[in-house]
Amino acid sequence: MAKQEIPYKIYLSEDELPKKWYNIKAAMKSQHEPFLNPATGKPCTADDLRPVFCDECIEQELNCTDLYIDIPEEIRNFYKMYRPSPLVRAYCLEKALGTPAEIYYKFEGNNTSGSHKLNSAVAQAYYAKKQGLKSITTETGAGQWGTALSMAAAYFDLDLTVYMVKVSGEQKPHRREVMRTYGANVILSPSDTTEAGRKILREFPGTGGSLGCAISEAVERAVTSDSCRYVLGSVLDHVVLHQSVIGLESKAAMEKYGVAPDMIIGCCGGGSNFGGLIAPFMGDKIAGKNDIEFIGVEPASCPSLTRGRYAYDFCDSARITPLAKMYTLGCGFMPSANHAGGLRYHGMSPIVSKLYHEGYMRAVAVEQTKVFEAAQMFARIEGILPAPESSHAIRVAIDEALRCKETGEKKKILFGLTGTGYFDMSAYKQFNDGTMQDTIPDDAALERGFATIPQVQENI
Amino acid sequence: MAKQEIPYKIYLSEDELPKKWYNIKAAMKSQHEPFLNPATGKPCTADDLRPVFCDECIEQELNCTDLYIDIPEEIRNFYKMYRPSPLVRAYCLEKALGTPAEIYYKFEGNNTSGSHKLNSAVAQAYYAKKQGLKSITTETGAGQWGTALSMAAAYFDLDLTVYMVKVSGEQKPHRREVMRTYGANVILSPSDTTEAGRKILREFPGTGGSLGCAISEAVERAVTSDSCRYVLGSVLDHVVLHQSVIGLESKAAMEKYGVAPDMIIGCCGGGSNFGGLIAPFMGDKIAGKNDIEFIGVEPASCPSLTRGRYAYDFCDSARITPLAKMYTLGCGFMPSANHAGGLRYHGMSPIVSKLYHEGYMRAVAVEQTKVFEAAQMFARIEGILPAPESSHAIRVAIDEALRCKETGEKKKILFGLTGTGYFDMSAYKQFNDGTMQDTIPDDAALERGFATIPQVQENI
Repeated sequence: MAKQEIPYKIYLSEDELPKKWYNIKAAMKSQHEPFLNPATGKPCTADDLRPVFCDECIEQELNCTDLYIDIPEEIRNFYKMYRPSPLVRAYCLEKALGTPAEIYYKFEGNNTSGSHKLNSAVAQAYYAKKQGLKSITTETGAGQWGTALSMAAAYFDLDLTVYMVKVSGEQKPHRREVMRTYGANVILSPSDTTEAGRKILREFPGTGGSLGCAISEAVERAVTSDSCRYVLGSVLDHVVLHQSVIGLESKAAMEKYGVAPDMIIGCCGGGSNFGGLIAPFMGDKIAGKNDIEFIGVEPASCPSLTRGRYAYDFCDSARITPLAKMYTLGCGFMPSANHAGGLRYHGMSPIVSKLYHEGYMRAVAVEQTKVFEAAQMFARIEGILPAPESSHAIRVAIDEALRCKETGEKKKILFGLTGTGYFDMSAYKQFNDGTMQDTIPDDAALERGFATIPQVQENI
Repeated sequence: MAKQEIPYKIYLSEDELPKKWYNIKAAMKSQHEPFLNPATGKPCTADDLRPVFCDECIEQELNCTDLYIDIPEEIRNFYKMYRPSPLVRAYCLEKALGTPAEIYYKFEGNNTSGSHKLNSAVAQAYYAKKQGLKSITTETGAGQWGTALSMAAAYFDLDLTVYMVKVSGEQKPHRREVMRTYGANVILSPSDTTEAGRKILREFPGTGGSLGCAISEAVERAVTSDSCRYVLGSVLDHVVLHQSVIGLESKAAMEKYGVAPDMIIGCCGGGSNFGGLIAPFMGDKIAGKNDIEFIGVEPASCPSLTRGRYAYDFCDSARITPLAKMYTLGCGFMPSANHAGGLRYHGMSPIVSKLYHEGYMRAVAVEQTKVFEAAQMFARIEGILPAPESSHAIRVAIDEALRCKETGEKKKILFGLTGTGYFDMSAYKQFNDGTMQDTIPDDAALERGFATIPQVQENI
């Protein structure tokens, strides 16, 4: 039978948009350890989480049994504005590299928020609306998540307050303006709108803020109001669940053309993009149905998988969240200020951590100058200016394709292109100017981070 | 026969990508007047244009007989990286407006350059490469065109020098950085790299530059080198030709679902987007095959069609280009400095001007605060943050859909969404802050512009 020629871009029809998310936990042979309540050291119950998160998200967070979970029609209708997203065959890149490998990427940047974050933002906003809440709140650093949530909140007519790290808001005024255009109330953090913010302002009057502080302010806002909840853009299991739409579409698109990937590569910050991309493929691998090599890529300046510890730690640097068992550099770890390439999170999704710990995937850490070299090359050859985060995956995809050139292997490589770099041009400027430096933490810096991992009694 | 349900996004397959551009001139009953050489007052010959433009572009510029012109395979391969672009059914907007009208938009912003400009940039870069040239040069103001050309030049491995209006380069450093990432040499104009630039710097040492000055520098660079040519992003007939891919795809996508538009709306700056969008539909109208209402939308602050004169004028404010018969406010006209909404060109594509002059279309001028209201509404409802330019068309599409709500008419409205507003957030900030003002030129301002239209002897 003549094989159908693969187009540059494989678009699924809207009929082929997944109707259910894929809950990788139900496919895993053992579950990651539960969140612990830091006050009691005991596993978190749904009731512990209810003042902070929406009820339905909590249910999803704790669901380890249902392999498929329905995507409500309202969310699917929103998805249809930008999904199914294209799976692109990187013909131009293959040719430029002279590799016998086939390279595919799933492009999640073709929506106004510019990244995959929208996939979970719309779900969480919908569940908040359905629960009868009036408002939601979150924090944002670089701004991808805040932008995505602004779009989702506007669509469902929810008030949204975004605590944006002050220094980020000042460095990225345009990100802030996109959120304002979508009607979000963007407050530079620390602010005088919360007790947490006022306390920090008293102690450190000139501070530029931190993600930890912004989280504290957002959570305080949520727990002090009956009609408001806090939403988070990565790390948690229900966020990985929502992001499984990436993997499901990728799988369907590849199957349509009879392509079985040999290798799947994704960037890892909090892990939700990577977890979502690999989910249905990984489920098959666990069931012995494929032998795909999964590679999580992280920055050498924030190497939680490759150099971190598998331990219980706080999800935030302010030490107010539940404790999660994950690969972590310590909740007090901060990547060098010279690090421009994103993926700055100290920890890693408990699901991804568990898969890594059990040997189902490997991880690679890459230096940012090499990442931006790959980004620039990709932009020039494939025509898409990638986000620095996504470019970590591009780097390793190129390296693997070049390896195939040496060995002659015709591997089929799939990677996740999570977003565009339109709002990251100051990082590109550093690279273009030749002033970008690599920033690999030395052992002493790692030890200082590890010292911030709490001593936890696991009462399980 | 049951009618097929129309999806949110109609994607044509890559097989359905047009193989030929549509040359509207061959469908017109009479041609626009020829360009005149300002030195002689005589029609420009191909030889007059050869030192400035690529040979094949000149041939296309002067071709009034071939209705279809082949798109070379190399250009089609580039197009495949981002085309066919989606035709979107604006279900969410229709619902929000409560209109019985059907609204469709052709979205040209889903490529890294963020606009339709890439359609002609790649064609012009290809023809330069084919001619054996080593480099091309252009000017850019807001940066859409410079970005598009940077991508095209990188793909075809051509050196590119972009003269960017100094004040724009300083206000939009990120635009500049995108071009640099694609390898373009971005020179802030006026510069000391040309005689024209040095002269202006001597006379006005602190000047922020102007588009006219940037054009002068780019043209000087082209004509003083055998291996370099100048390329232009709008106005000219061959640019309208390249942009016909927008109209051809729109027509094919609508026909696929049996939808015949009653009205087609596009924003008009230099006119290439509008001309390209309407081309094949207009050809049918001229042949008596449809009765579509065509509406060109321009800013009230730069109203060349609605308040300009139909006269021979220079295409640039530096008065170095050939003279074109077109609707113009005078080559010395400058829209108010308060105007943030793009489409600042003093003239209009000779093709569009001719069609307008002969009554095949109408034009509407809209005020920028109303444009940004529409932009914000569209962003929140349809999820795409539009470019200010594109939002002129959105404004009128919304107004027409609301008119249908009053009359009960189920008109099928198609408009062109030419690009995204990611790099226009300072204009959005003005709107979000409530500091944006409308800037309608008074009659005296128009008269000052008209006084700059040259007195030309038409030796035809």
